[in-house]
Amino acid sequence: MRVLILGGDGYLGWPTSMYLSAKGHEVAVVDNMAKRTWEAEISVEPLSPIRPLHQRIKRWQELTGRSIKSYIGDIAENHRFVYKVLEGFQPDAVIHYAEQPSAPYSMIDRDRCVFTQRNNVLGTLNVMFALQHTNPDIHMVKLGTMGEYGTPNIDIEEGWLELEHRGRRDRVLYPKKPGSFYHLSKVHDSANLEFACRIWGMRVTDLNQGVVYGIETEETKLHPDLETSFHYDSVFGTVLNRFVVQAVAGFPLTVYGKGGQTRGFLNIRDTLQCVELALMNPADRGEFRVFNQFTEQFDIMGLAERVVAAASSVGITPTIEHLQNPRVELEEHYYNAIHSALPSLGLKPHLLTEDVIVNMIDLVRRNLHRIDRDVLVPSVMWKQK
Amino acid sequence: MRVLILGGDGYLGWPTSMYLSAKGHEVAVVDNMAKRTWEAEISVEPLSPIRPLHQRIKRWQELTGRSIKSYIGDIAENHRFVYKVLEGFQPDAVIHYAEQPSAPYSMIDRDRCVFTQRNNVLGTLNVMFALQHTNPDIHMVKLGTMGEYGTPNIDIEEGWLELEHRGRRDRVLYPKKPGSFYHLSKVHDSANLEFACRIWGMRVTDLNQGVVYGIETEETKLHPDLETSFHYDSVFGTVLNRFVVQAVAGFPLTVYGKGGQTRGFLNIRDTLQCVELALMNPADRGEFRVFNQFTEQFDIMGLAERVVAAASSVGITPTIEHLQNPRVELEEHYYNAIHSALPSLGLKPHLLTEDVIVNMIDLVRRNLHRIDRDVLVPSVMWKQK
Repeated sequence: MRVLILGGDGYLGWPTSMYLSAKGHEVAVVDNMAKRTWEAEISVEPLSPIRPLHQRIKRWQELTGRSIKSYIGDIAENHRFVYKVLEGFQPDAVIHYAEQPSAPYSMIDRDRCVFTQRNNVLGTLNVMFALQHTNPDIHMVKLGTMGEYGTPNIDIEEGWLELEHRGRRDRVLYPKKPGSFYHLSKVHDSANLEFACRIWGMRVTDLNQGVVYGIETEETKLHPDLETSFHYDSVFGTVLNRFVVQAVAGFPLTVYGKGGQTRGFLNIRDTLQCVELALMNPADRGEFRVFNQFTEQFDIMGLAERVVAAASSVGITPTIEHLQNPRVELEEHYYNAIHSALPSLGLKPHLLTEDVIVNMIDLVRRNLHRIDRDVLVPSVMWKQK
Repeated sequence: MRVLILGGDGYLGWPTSMYLSAKGHEVAVVDNMAKRTWEAEISVEPLSPIRPLHQRIKRWQELTGRSIKSYIGDIAENHRFVYKVLEGFQPDAVIHYAEQPSAPYSMIDRDRCVFTQRNNVLGTLNVMFALQHTNPDIHMVKLGTMGEYGTPNIDIEEGWLELEHRGRRDRVLYPKKPGSFYHLSKVHDSANLEFACRIWGMRVTDLNQGVVYGIETEETKLHPDLETSFHYDSVFGTVLNRFVVQAVAGFPLTVYGKGGQTRGFLNIRDTLQCVELALMNPADRGEFRVFNQFTEQFDIMGLAERVVAAASSVGITPTIEHLQNPRVELEEHYYNAIHSALPSLGLKPHLLTEDVIVNMIDLVRRNLHRIDRDVLVPSVMWKQK
């Protein structure tokens, strides 16, 4: 299969590119390297030094004999670039990771809020039009987030809701209650995509992904040059990744508020598996298909306690500290999100065992000297002064 | 009350400005005159020649002794302008009409789609941030559209839905199924605004307005220079306005598809009344309040038949012609939209009587020589070739 990966330089895009390349797919990646700018702007960097994309691709070819094509350009600002790449590569499927991925980043100020929505929403529109222009049969696999749903008091279904109201029934897009301007950008994307499926007959799989954790995959392990950009800072780092780094750094695990916030989580290896399952089982023409992509639910306190337990098994004894919550979110709530579509396609989860956490601790320890303790606590507040 | 009207040069913005000025409010208007460009791009113009905004304001002052301030600038491209206007005028409320208002325009091509979402969504974000910066107590009255809901098989509630699902209950934003990239831009706005109410404590009234018809208000009647930009073309003209012009021009009334499409309608005079009711009864801090703003439901065939009946009473006998539907929409469907909030605040509807249509026919006849028959049929198709 010919697969075009938008955002192929990122935490998930790069491992996905190698994973699919290893499986024998023809892979090409698109990136504008903008994430490296956003990191520099707020003075954070990934835990390991990340080689430039072309060097990673070269190393991958040396080690495996497999080539990955690359196109450097901005999908939001330069639609001609998107059209040209699609015309040139003629993919069977496009995996779209190419968005500003941080909720706190989108909440820094007006500039970052507007940038996030412009970049994410208009970039996705450009891809939609380019797909229609090139070949409407191309399957789009779009990365969304479980955060689009918020924390409703009812079960979270997979994208759509069958409902009854005053004695009549309909199937509707599941009502969203996103928690940041970033999450809103994904909600806007989903609405635009559902419309394009309905009107143009696009085929779209929207992966509402939970919180991803993990440092390595079978492919990143092959060589240090192939590592992925693991973030642990309070802006680009996800919570479990941050807890592990805090434990290793001898820093308290910082829980925002009460810590009763419950979310869906998955191992980075399962992201790759899920994306592949979506590719191998494409949406129909005109189908806007949504999968909730996570394997387990945890609340934040429970997660912190798991990290404490795993750390203590290797001689570290982190404390847990409750910080005033920088976000506006419920800290105790009902949460039950359906996630049966991907398992029914064959997903075999890598669950969060103590071994998994211990392995993360070992990997982080190798880069202990690179940990910046200043970026471990939140710097962005949801409420304006 | 000090009221700032964004989009004060438009079909509804200008009559609203005069109406509120006549009632003794301090009114200022903001516009970038962009609508005049969009019209020229696609070669359409309002039925009456529309004087430049400053000349309309001058005439209004001469006739009534009341002054209207004006600020010329682009709220989407120039956030500093928005901040400056709010700092300078210090309004109690902002009425936000300043969006690209046409569904067909947004469906012309990629450029117009992306422009519409950028202009509408980012413009509204700029206003939201500027309000937070200036004074979070300012009430924002935002023009949305009934078209955000689409045509669900259940009753349409006013913005929010109380629902029960698997034995649990919640109150959620009403699920939307918009019918164009324009309508989607309004859905995105609503989601962004709901979030800002929740996080920042903004006060917002989102007016999901039906299809507006009508040519004159008490204020536009005072002098030809005060007329508003009445559109009858297939891109910027709403359906009843177009039918009346088609009748006068001796053209068939062009019904898209079967004509069973049902929508909410209201007289332009009631738009003014509704906006004033929202102003006088502001949303609370943190409240995202939605009113469905229309007075009557009609299906398109029923509307065409009413125009035929009214026209024949003044000696015109238009025919009705079914065109292949340029849009993708249900042509026969359930439709029952709740609209009780505005009546409960005191709305006294101007209903669509035969007299109202006859009066519109009389007004259009004065400009018979200006009707361009080439713009009466649809030029924009929803499905890409």
